[in-house]
Amino acid sequence: MSADRYAERRLRTLEAAETAGLGGILVAAGPDLTYLTAYTPPPLERLTLLVLSTGADPTLVMPTLERPLAESAAGAPGLTMLDWRDGGDDPYGIVAAMLGSRRYAVTDRTWASHLLALQRAAPGRSFVAASEAVPLLRAVKDADEIQRLRAVANGADAAFADVIELPFAGRSETDVAAELDRLLRDHGHQRVDFTIVGSGPNAASGHHEPGERRIEPGDAVVMDFGGMRDDYCSDITRTVFVGEPSREEREVYAIVRAAQQAAFEAVRPGVAAEEVDRAARAVITEAGYGERFVHRTGHGIGLEIHEPPYIVEGNRTPLEAGMTFSDEPGIYLEGRFGVRIEDQVAVTAQGAERLNDASRELTVVT
Amino acid sequence: MSADRYAERRLRTLEAAETAGLGGILVAAGPDLTYLTAYTPPPLERLTLLVLSTGADPTLVMPTLERPLAESAAGAPGLTMLDWRDGGDDPYGIVAAMLGSRRYAVTDRTWASHLLALQRAAPGRSFVAASEAVPLLRAVKDADEIQRLRAVANGADAAFADVIELPFAGRSETDVAAELDRLLRDHGHQRVDFTIVGSGPNAASGHHEPGERRIEPGDAVVMDFGGMRDDYCSDITRTVFVGEPSREEREVYAIVRAAQQAAFEAVRPGVAAEEVDRAARAVITEAGYGERFVHRTGHGIGLEIHEPPYIVEGNRTPLEAGMTFSDEPGIYLEGRFGVRIEDQVAVTAQGAERLNDASRELTVVT
Repeated sequence: MSADRYAERRLRTLEAAETAGLGGILVAAGPDLTYLTAYTPPPLERLTLLVLSTGADPTLVMPTLERPLAESAAGAPGLTMLDWRDGGDDPYGIVAAMLGSRRYAVTDRTWASHLLALQRAAPGRSFVAASEAVPLLRAVKDADEIQRLRAVANGADAAFADVIELPFAGRSETDVAAELDRLLRDHGHQRVDFTIVGSGPNAASGHHEPGERRIEPGDAVVMDFGGMRDDYCSDITRTVFVGEPSREEREVYAIVRAAQQAAFEAVRPGVAAEEVDRAARAVITEAGYGERFVHRTGHGIGLEIHEPPYIVEGNRTPLEAGMTFSDEPGIYLEGRFGVRIEDQVAVTAQGAERLNDASRELTVVT
Repeated sequence: MSADRYAERRLRTLEAAETAGLGGILVAAGPDLTYLTAYTPPPLERLTLLVLSTGADPTLVMPTLERPLAESAAGAPGLTMLDWRDGGDDPYGIVAAMLGSRRYAVTDRTWASHLLALQRAAPGRSFVAASEAVPLLRAVKDADEIQRLRAVANGADAAFADVIELPFAGRSETDVAAELDRLLRDHGHQRVDFTIVGSGPNAASGHHEPGERRIEPGDAVVMDFGGMRDDYCSDITRTVFVGEPSREEREVYAIVRAAQQAAFEAVRPGVAAEEVDRAARAVITEAGYGERFVHRTGHGIGLEIHEPPYIVEGNRTPLEAGMTFSDEPGIYLEGRFGVRIEDQVAVTAQGAERLNDASRELTVVT
């Protein structure tokens, strides 16, 4: 991507902050900084901060030690660079001196230690989380971003298609998780972020950490996995059955699948995010499992695995074409089994399309 | 480690907070939570928070979805578990209701979005960064921790010993970096965090990102690499020369080595951290390169690559036996070359010992 494109994004971001009544936005290390500068500082404690403030040049503050690294970023042209040195300079004072007497957004992942130091260095100003003040900064993806999300989603689809060809019974959860890690990389992932494999009773734990449990015939196995390719994230869940599922398991699977489909069909521009959650929840609640659907229906996806818009009760954000998020209802029966089905979807001009195309049919493995 | 040990650490931590005049400490996901509970939540946006507050039971607040995961942590016994559900419960309100009317420490890596929401939910309370209020929580290591730090340091030493047997000239920086990654894993690292390889003029960039530059005869090559084994971190730097170094390179190498030795010899209980920085800086300044030593002399190491105590001008913390930190002076000649030498050291009853034992002799590679 060209330096101009990053400069455009910075301009649009500052305008969004101004529209929200703010004096600007402070962007610490994390996906927002990547989006606005292509710069990823080492994930350490020294302050790196992009300051976008009304009437001032966009300025990146960084440790002297990392100035050459920052200057080599694709989005560096057009940024004023200000470095600070260990043991003498006060980076918070430097930032405070650049702020007007107003309210500023701060990106969510800014460390609390940095925010507290800024609050002290800039006593006249107040701060608000970027996800609250300007939640949709990165929410509407352009065609290139959607193409990247589809490519990484399809890598995850291919990993699922491969893993169900292998035997499950007798293998440990960690063994299947390691296999998924390998398959994701084989299918183009440059980083693997998580490989949840929950079998039998562990399938009822939404964010289960794979363990040494041996998978047995009769188990449901929830696999929720993803990672990154070309900066964009994948995240897919499928639930498979080791041998023929019971009647109850079939029923629960069918309910979750219908809920996932109902949420998908509710997606179109102008619909509030919470309406998509309600569409999935209505199906599960009517079937009598409402209390067992213990999480929201979805989360946005892009440079982060989880980002706005969140598909959750209370979020009245109207969906727009280009927004991308997960559709992932689940039912969890503690101590017994669980089912979750997750795809990433993109809002289109008329409705929605799935970015994943792995089978959602009930799948029996050996 | 036993559950009792984690409970002891929590008790000691709350006592340290009380001694610092605080009502307690709020511990978000990160190394402090690992230290106090052995629990590592998924690195996502939902709030997980350990609340240690005077007169209250130690309480872990987490999303309902992740409750089974939290309950299975080795340090979970003795914790009150409070889960909150998407789309209805307000986790910040839950935490605010648990706080007395006082000042609380918040761990450094807490997301700004969480801190801002807490500040709003608990308007009567104020917050301070843990690294400021109780900086030494994890700074003094016990024998088991020092053994783990030595083991991971020795893995990094072994990777260095192997890499210098290979040819450098003609290979790219990224190629050598990939080799270091492989060698660290071969020598017991479970995670690799960074493999800085800066050659020729790039050796003058302290935190250089390895690139496609081909290493040439006559280059200095700074290699700074590390990762994690059994939760504890390694971090070592060596500078090697491809073929015979110039007289100036030899001179700069000798100065950095003498500075690194001077800092090491300054370490003993009771000495202020800044005195160790001054010992290294004096050598480099006297040799006329003071302006080219653009960073502090070191940082603490443990569950984090960088943690207190920082070996920097202005840090008057008296060293104590069991503290562990890096000794890593450097000289950077922009556009030409750079030299840095880094070991991890532990403060002992009488002085200090190095945790790394890789050669610090000037090393010529092919």
